[in-house]
Formats: sequence, C-alpha cells, structure tokens
Amino acid sequence: MDFSDVKAMTFDVFGTVVDWRGSIIREGEDVWTAKGVEVDWPEFADSWRGGYGPSMQRVRNGELPWMNIDALHRIILDDLLAQHKVSALSEADRVELNKVWHRLNPWPDVVSGLESLRKRFVLASLSNGNVALLVNMARHGGYCWDCVLSAELARHYKPDPEVYQTAAALLGLKPREVMMVAAHNGDLKASKAVGFRTAFVHRPREFGPGQTTDLKPDPSVDVIAKDFNDLADQLQIN
Amino acid sequence: MDFSDVKAMTFDVFGTVVDWRGSIIREGEDVWTAKGVEVDWPEFADSWRGGYGPSMQRVRNGELPWMNIDALHRIILDDLLAQHKVSALSEADRVELNKVWHRLNPWPDVVSGLESLRKRFVLASLSNGNVALLVNMARHGGYCWDCVLSAELARHYKPDPEVYQTAAALLGLKPREVMMVAAHNGDLKASKAVGFRTAFVHRPREFGPGQTTDLKPDPSVDVIAKDFNDLADQLQIN
Repeated sequence: MDFSDVKAMTFDVFGTVVDWRGSIIREGEDVWTAKGVEVDWPEFADSWRGGYGPSMQRVRNGELPWMNIDALHRIILDDLLAQHKVSALSEADRVELNKVWHRLNPWPDVVSGLESLRKRFVLASLSNGNVALLVNMARHGGYCWDCVLSAELARHYKPDPEVYQTAAALLGLKPREVMMVAAHNGDLKASKAVGFRTAFVHRPREFGPGQTTDLKPDPSVDVIAKDFNDLADQLQIN
Repeated sequence: MDFSDVKAMTFDVFGTVVDWRGSIIREGEDVWTAKGVEVDWPEFADSWRGGYGPSMQRVRNGELPWMNIDALHRIILDDLLAQHKVSALSEADRVELNKVWHRLNPWPDVVSGLESLRKRFVLASLSNGNVALLVNMARHGGYCWDCVLSAELARHYKPDPEVYQTAAALLGLKPREVMMVAAHNGDLKASKAVGFRTAFVHRPREFGPGQTTDLKPDPSVDVIAKDFNDLADQLQIN
C-alpha cells in the first residue's frame, strides 16, 4: 500500500503509548499503600480503568456536562476509595493520587520509535486524556509530541467522529493524510470511518496477563506492527 | 520577585520566537522573484504583516466569520499580488507562497534558550498563528513545544482575554502559574490583565532597522530579558 501522502500520525495514548496498568500498580505499591491505600493494586487499577468507558458514556448521553478525564478519573477514584473504605487520604493526597494518570510510563519501544517516526511524520497524540495530562505524561516519559491533540479540543470523546475530524482540521490536513496508531480496533475503525489511514500496534499485556480483547487486528487496518520500532521499519524510515 | 509557583511559559511567536520579516525577505528574494513576484521584498513583507491586525479586527467585529491565520494571510496576499499586478502565480504557487509563514526562522538564541527553559517549565506557544502553522514552524526551526496553543483553540484572537484564559485552562493551571513571554507590550498587558506573569524580550529589529514600536518594556512587566538565553539565566536554570 502506498502511504506517500501520509503527513501526520495521531496516536492513541492509554495502552498504546503508555502502560497505564503497570504504572498504576507500581506507584500504588511503592507510594500509596504506605499512605493508607491498602488495596490489591492490580484489581484497583483495573477497576479505575473500568470506570472510564461508562463515565465517558455518561458525558456522551448528556447525563453529565462536558468534563475532562481528570475530572472523570476523580469521580471514579472517590467511588473506589469509598468502596474500599479508604479514609486516610487528605484532599491534597487525592489530587496527587488522581494525577498518577499524568505519570504513566511509556512502553520500552516508544521513545526510540517516536524519534524515528518523527523524522518523516508530524506526530500528535490523539487521546481522550486532557491536554494537561498529555503534556505532563510526555515530559514524564521523555518524548515530545509535535502537537498535543485531545478529545478535550473537540469536546467529544473517542470514538465520536468529531474527535478525528477536529484533529485533521487542526493539523491542516485531509483525513487520508493522517494515520491513526492504536492498540484498539474500535479506535482504528472509528478513525477509518472518517477517512484516516490506520496502524494497529500489538499491546497484548495492556490489560495484564489475562487480556482477552484486541489481541488481533481487525482485517480493515492498513498496517500491523509489533511495536513502534517495527512501525518505523515498515514505513521505511530507519 | 518570586516565581517559584510559575509552572509554564507561553510564548508569542511572530516576532518573539521567529524573525518573520527577515525570513520572508530571504525566501522572497531567493525563490519568488524568479517565479515572477518581482517586488521590493522588505516592503512586501511589511505590507503583508501590516494587513494582519486589520484583518483580525474584521473577524473580531463579526465582519468576517471565524477564520484562521492561514486564511487571513491568503486574503491579504491576494490583495497585495493584485496591487503589484503579479499574475504569474498558479493557485498551487499561491498556496505555497502563503505557507512561507510556516517556514519562518527562529532568532539565533531561541533553540538553546528554549532547551534551557524546558528543563524547568512547560513550554507552550500562544500565538494568533493556527495550530498547523505553529507545528510546521517548530519542525522547520528545530525546536519542540510541550504544547502548541493557539488563538485557534479559543476562536478568539489575542489580545482578547479568552485566548489567555483558554491557554491556562488547557494547561490545567491558574493564570498566575503561567508566564507570558513576548516582545510586545500589548500582548503582555493583556495577559497580565487575566493574571499571567509577564516577561518582555527585546526584539528591536523585528520590524527592520527603522523600528519604532516596543523598543522598551512597559513598567508593568515582571521580567525584562535581552533574549531567551538571558531569560533562562535570570530564572536561574542554566
């Protein structure tokens, strides 16, 4: 397939760029258990992430007004802490714990892969995470986006088409000049529906050892890559 | 003055980060004269830039619908080419010439100054230039913003307060945690009015050898710097 007209790549972030589950478990066990959050951290991370889809759906429905992911993460966190009867945390602690989502670590191939890809393509995040979260996470992880794009700028959450359309418009490009990179078939199919090219990256441990979803790419995707370095190799830019 | 609570810096771009006038003159003389744009390039650059304030005012008034700077630059360009009776350019040429604003060169202190400042602060553009223009310009100039912020995201042009308020909100910060950096007192005063800290950077040749405006900082500014390296030195991060 000819990708010579692709000018930019947009990246899903949670799961595709960063290992949210491993990062939360690690910080939880290293820092927060001692502060009184005595929980099973793998299960806590999964529950926190599990509240994410339903909470975005409440925004999509109009049941909640527009609010960014920091605010949704906080609502879910407060519920979880109540369920686990954790009462040791001050308000400042809760703010800080909620910001663990700003401190997620990239998968090992990300920094080198992005550096290669950036030689030829404009690289942008395209995440449901809010702008501040994505900015802080990139600085934490040691990479730099040419442009931080977020659902927050469209005031719609992926997979709503407005998110992808807004991204292409802000980049000044036609949808077919942009390639969406994600470990999730739903995201890729939604971006393809508005005209983006698509690249599936395998992240079979995003949800831990028992992962059952997104283990295989949908047949509709344009490129299938093991990781970001493999993606750069396939697009012949190393 | 204590700036320990400043977390991010937002930068005016045209004139503060890049030498728009010198860059347009150089590309004009090197490339476009031979293609049939036989004009006095210093005068042409000044006229093109001169149309910018009035055209934003037409958007502000509602005389024109919202449109980004690429579109405003194009309207001004077409008028100027007609005035100079230049008819040699194809539509593709006009698109390409209009994009000279995506290829402006940074002042000599910018790349090293931003690299120093980025060690401590989140660095964002905050320009009336549109997102795509700012992304392409940063890649052209060899620097990387942590976040490309633009008037386009607020759908208001500076110095409207909405531009600064939107920037602080997207960065997840209070206005006083953000420092606006500009070579223009009007921009600094408008950002200060919404609560930003301010840094004036001297760019006495932005408008060429006969510049008469913004030669001195307004007494209200918090920091006065010769250039970006001096700014980094004053904020003690070298």
